[in-house]
Amino acid sequence: MIIGQVINSVWCTRKEDSLTGMKLLIVKLLDSQNHDNSRNIVAVDLIGAGIGERVLITQGSSARKSLGSDEAPIDSIIIGIIDENAEL
Amino acid sequence: MIIGQVINSVWCTRKEDSLTGMKLLIVKLLDSQNHDNSRNIVAVDLIGAGIGERVLITQGSSARKSLGSDEAPIDSIIIGIIDENAEL
Amino acid sequence: MIIGQVINSVWCTRKEDSLTGMKLLIVKLLDSQNHDNSRNIVAVDLIGAGIGERVLITQGSSARKSLGSDEAPIDSIIIGIIDENAEL
Amino acid sequence: MIIGQVINSVWCTRKEDSLTGMKLLIVKLLDSQNHDNSRNIVAVDLIGAGIGERVLITQGSSARKSLGSDEAPIDSIIIGIIDENAEL
Amino acid sequence: MIIGQVINSVWCTRKEDSLTGMKLLIVKLLDSQNHDNSRNIVAVDLIGAGIGERVLITQGSSARKSLGSDEAPIDSIIIGIIDENAEL
Repeated sequence: MIIGQVINSVWCTRKEDSLTGMKLLIVKLLDSQNHDNSRNIVAVDLIGAGIGERVLITQGSSARKSLGSDEAPIDSIIIGIIDENAEL
Repeated sequence: MIIGQVINSVWCTRKEDSLTGMKLLIVKLLDSQNHDNSRNIVAVDLIGAGIGERVLITQGSSARKSLGSDEAPIDSIIIGIIDENAEL
Repeated sequence: MIIGQVINSVWCTRKEDSLTGMKLLIVKLLDSQNHDNSRNIVAVDLIGAGIGERVLITQGSSARKSLGSDEAPIDSIIIGIIDENAEL
Repeated sequence: MIIGQVINSVWCTRKEDSLTGMKLLIVKLLDSQNHDNSRNIVAVDLIGAGIGERVLITQGSSARKSLGSDEAPIDSIIIGIIDENAEL
Repeated sequence: MIIGQVINSVWCTRKEDSLTGMKLLIVKLLDSQNHDNSRNIVAVDLIGAGIGERVLITQGSSARKSLGSDEAPIDSIIIGIIDENAEL
């Protein structure tokens, strides 16, 4: 899993039908000490993460399978919100 | 998922039979603030994305499965077009 | 597989139910000679790794499958603790 | 998918039995504008790509599944040859 | 697939039971011209690779499946030894 910080939500009026009702968040990855290498990804949020919170993200087929579907076009989900005072 | 911008389409006269009829777009990834690290990928488009539009992309087995086939040689699809005035 | 060094544990009070009881460790990857490129990931630990120990990590669907579940939202697990005097 | 240029073939006298008869090509990835980051991979070729040609490559489980086998030790295949005069 | 050079073996006294008897090798990837970006991975060796030899490696679920098991915690295997006089 990787750690990131929620920076925004993302809206798509035109999208795959199966995405309807899913909350999509832009997450800045905190996996590198090299700020020039920082990357953003988009993850499905099922547990109510807010902007600024640090979150734990699972990627790949494990993200899709955990949704209970084998056909959702999803490769990243937020699986936990890291406690506020945690040192990373 | 990752965010990119459509920059062109790509044509292959010689290709796997199962690609016939699929629209393939070159997408410049917008996942990094470091422009030297920007990468291009090719994704299947099922929702009518145009050149210049910013799109949401799913990768890996989740891209293949969402096509309803377990044997398509596809590892990236466009699943949404990001609203024009969205801040990323 | 990749090699990393355990640097901390990570706590999430709000999380996916299926994570309850799993020990999650932050691991600094030792896969690059370029320290500016060093990355951190979070892995499930089933074999009792401690802070400072060097560990072997499996990623992707192989991490999830080895837990004996096809739906756990897990993409990284620690599968071995590297002997202390090993040269890497 | 990613785009690359075929630069050579690769020969392994000692190899997994299931690789026998497969044509393996070294491909320089053209996915980055930063030449210091250029990477080489090895892909199975089923459609007759030649040295110097630009090709489209699928990776991961989608490469294996498209071979019609679930056990081939293959994670990259060439699925198309990009038309010669195409701009990338 | 990717190309690397075997640089050492790795020993884990404490490990997942399913790893018992597997030979694990540290491999320096030769996929980049940029030496600052060189990475090391650990791969299972089933074909008798020696230190210094250049090898072909498959990653992800294709590595696990080729072992004939769907639950082995393995994401990288050596599938070929590249002929000594080959140019890469």
